[in-house]
Amino acid sequence: VVIGGDAGGMAAASQLRRLQPDAEIVVLEKGRWTSYSACGIPYLIGGQISALDHLVARTPEEFRAQRIDVRMQHEATAIDLDARTVEVHNLERGRTFALGFAQLHLATGATPRRPEVPGIDGPHVHAVQTLADAASLLADAEQNRPQRVCVIGVGYIGLELAESFLMRGAEVTVVDRAAHAMASLDADMGALVAQAMRRHGITMRLEESVMGIDHAAVTTNEREIPADLVILGTGVRPNTTMLGECGIPLGSTGGVVVDRRQQTSIPGVFAAGDCCESRHLVSGKPVNVALGTYANKQGRVAGINMGGGYATFPGVAGTAVTKLCATEIGRTGLNESEASAAGFEYVSAKIDATTWAGYLDGPPITVKMLAERRTGRVLGAQIVGGSGAAKRIDVVATALAARMTADDVAALDLGYAPPFSTVWDPVAVAARQLLGRLTEGGASR
Amino acid sequence: VVIGGDAGGMAAASQLRRLQPDAEIVVLEKGRWTSYSACGIPYLIGGQISALDHLVARTPEEFRAQRIDVRMQHEATAIDLDARTVEVHNLERGRTFALGFAQLHLATGATPRRPEVPGIDGPHVHAVQTLADAASLLADAEQNRPQRVCVIGVGYIGLELAESFLMRGAEVTVVDRAAHAMASLDADMGALVAQAMRRHGITMRLEESVMGIDHAAVTTNEREIPADLVILGTGVRPNTTMLGECGIPLGSTGGVVVDRRQQTSIPGVFAAGDCCESRHLVSGKPVNVALGTYANKQGRVAGINMGGGYATFPGVAGTAVTKLCATEIGRTGLNESEASAAGFEYVSAKIDATTWAGYLDGPPITVKMLAERRTGRVLGAQIVGGSGAAKRIDVVATALAARMTADDVAALDLGYAPPFSTVWDPVAVAARQLLGRLTEGGASR
Repeated sequence: VVIGGDAGGMAAASQLRRLQPDAEIVVLEKGRWTSYSACGIPYLIGGQISALDHLVARTPEEFRAQRIDVRMQHEATAIDLDARTVEVHNLERGRTFALGFAQLHLATGATPRRPEVPGIDGPHVHAVQTLADAASLLADAEQNRPQRVCVIGVGYIGLELAESFLMRGAEVTVVDRAAHAMASLDADMGALVAQAMRRHGITMRLEESVMGIDHAAVTTNEREIPADLVILGTGVRPNTTMLGECGIPLGSTGGVVVDRRQQTSIPGVFAAGDCCESRHLVSGKPVNVALGTYANKQGRVAGINMGGGYATFPGVAGTAVTKLCATEIGRTGLNESEASAAGFEYVSAKIDATTWAGYLDGPPITVKMLAERRTGRVLGAQIVGGSGAAKRIDVVATALAARMTADDVAALDLGYAPPFSTVWDPVAVAARQLLGRLTEGGASR
Repeated sequence: VVIGGDAGGMAAASQLRRLQPDAEIVVLEKGRWTSYSACGIPYLIGGQISALDHLVARTPEEFRAQRIDVRMQHEATAIDLDARTVEVHNLERGRTFALGFAQLHLATGATPRRPEVPGIDGPHVHAVQTLADAASLLADAEQNRPQRVCVIGVGYIGLELAESFLMRGAEVTVVDRAAHAMASLDADMGALVAQAMRRHGITMRLEESVMGIDHAAVTTNEREIPADLVILGTGVRPNTTMLGECGIPLGSTGGVVVDRRQQTSIPGVFAAGDCCESRHLVSGKPVNVALGTYANKQGRVAGINMGGGYATFPGVAGTAVTKLCATEIGRTGLNESEASAAGFEYVSAKIDATTWAGYLDGPPITVKMLAERRTGRVLGAQIVGGSGAAKRIDVVATALAARMTADDVAALDLGYAPPFSTVWDPVAVAARQLLGRLTEGGASR
């Protein structure tokens, strides 16, 4: 039995079917779609994708053709680990039944955090996590053509939906309690993102708290912001309340605890995706990161192991990329506060360069990199820049997996040609600068 | 004394000056420019750069302001290693003198290979290596407005100059003795480049040998190709004849042999750039690769060591990127013939994907990857594709430096967002496919 029909669930079901042609596989999905790209929702809203269906990688019918018994609008309401049964509620017919399992796979996903303020449940207030959320937001945007949109919280989804509504021609205001945009970046790099947001015409209201929402405005502790439509970009939490109540071990992050084969401590019970924890490759700590690529990869690993094979998920480096119009953002590993929290004594360097040759009008790029002081081991990096900036973070993500030092990264043989890079790639320049800091006698943090 | 005023020489001179404010530094440059981007020449010819000066990173005057005694149009004609003097010919005044040195740095660069065929020295036949060559080619292109251009040899420079003349509106024909374009790629990947070249309107004449050139045509063993202007893209060889004659040890590649500090076996004599050998990180063999980024990095290393510091150049992975209009090309490590020559038993995998999400019209990308059969160690990769394809090679270049296996690369946490990548980055998909091949019982090569 697989609970959840999106990436983390269906990748597992597909692998299991591949390895065990005769296994009976039942997937319970409380919604109306399987295997969709939630990450693509901003581009649906922005108009770059013409129809919601384009975000669906595979339909229930396609899975059924592989003899995977996908039951839509079926919600798992409880798990009895002793009896090894799942209590299932058929949302369409309103009846409840029990389903036995030999192996169970949990892919219950995540739920948007909703600040507890008056008016948060208004029909024009949208949290965007599922394809059903997307359908509702798209309908609101198309029917009511909002002129003023307020985005609460500047994380990845907030940033991307701000872009979507800019593309729809709306005035966009962003509110965040934090002093800088993008909590996953350091303040100095977040400031570059905020600058870009302002440059693209977004009104920024940082260090303001939302006190209430009504049909025409969002009220903060500082002002009233006129808004016909409100987006919640305030993050998600793993959807594990029921799982915890039924005895599935949860970790400090609230996610399901799994080993490197994606198995929980309960034999035959696996988990993948937004609902479970991962090990951070640099800090070694458990983290809960809701990202489609992890759900896919973890689901695949769980499915192979459920099918009697052997596969492992080694952990996450915390790599993420996104963009706002022409501004690209990438990050991996630990930022300053994460490095401190993990107990690293670190040094950092930040450089400004161009993503390709200046004489070909290469756009600007800023690269910040952290390394452990004693060993020179690279701990993480953050990038903000123009075209070609974001995916350069992959070099650092690879370096983190290999536990490379700043010296190693400075020496890398990275691709050079004037339309693609400067003679020294900006990532290598940052590493070289970091190397200088590491050998200085100066103070570190 | 530094012989050669381009990247490999001037990077060394600058580092030496930084470390030793009082050292007497003389640079001998036989041409009229210092520190220029030869790699940028195609973009000057193509019109993306408006003036030749934009390719000059630093002028002789700028170096002189740092008390580096740059002598233009001065050619080193001999070296006496016992007397520790260089024989210098002043090309402007026609006189010769001797210059003593405590330390000598060789950065004599490379010379284009010129096939020995009648007419090769015609005024409309251009080899493109120095800025003087670029000035001559640009003058020919602007004054004579050639309608039909023939490029002999499809390497990086041939490909890039073919693009330049397409942009100038000329008809371009390419001739190569080889059966496929780009000798640094395998035949199957080179075929993708040839396809792209045809798609962009270039006439391809592969497996044809040039027999002669006159003012109106290039004659091959198969046909006569009308041509007002001819480009030699037939590669370069290290400019080391005089060095070898004077007792500087040369290797099997014809390049100067250096250690990891860029020092020759003669104390106090260093070398950097196109004239010297590098160690290949994967094969362990000496190679001679003429690429501006290596010249720069090796020059910096030589300069630091000449200045009493400690720096090393770890070797090259053979990374290169280029493009033809919208088609991007990247390669690193060993291709199939190089892997065989180095004695590796290898398996390969090739995958087709898109550089970003298909539902956002991500352009196609083909990634080919090789790994050693017994260990799974990645040996190299080749990429051909649309926007975002080429620089993905950097992930593999980083993996090569870390001696990663296909398993390691498949597990990398690479940046994912729909405008930047598919859920599994194409590089990871290729590694995963390779992993499948490695665990198959099938035949390997």
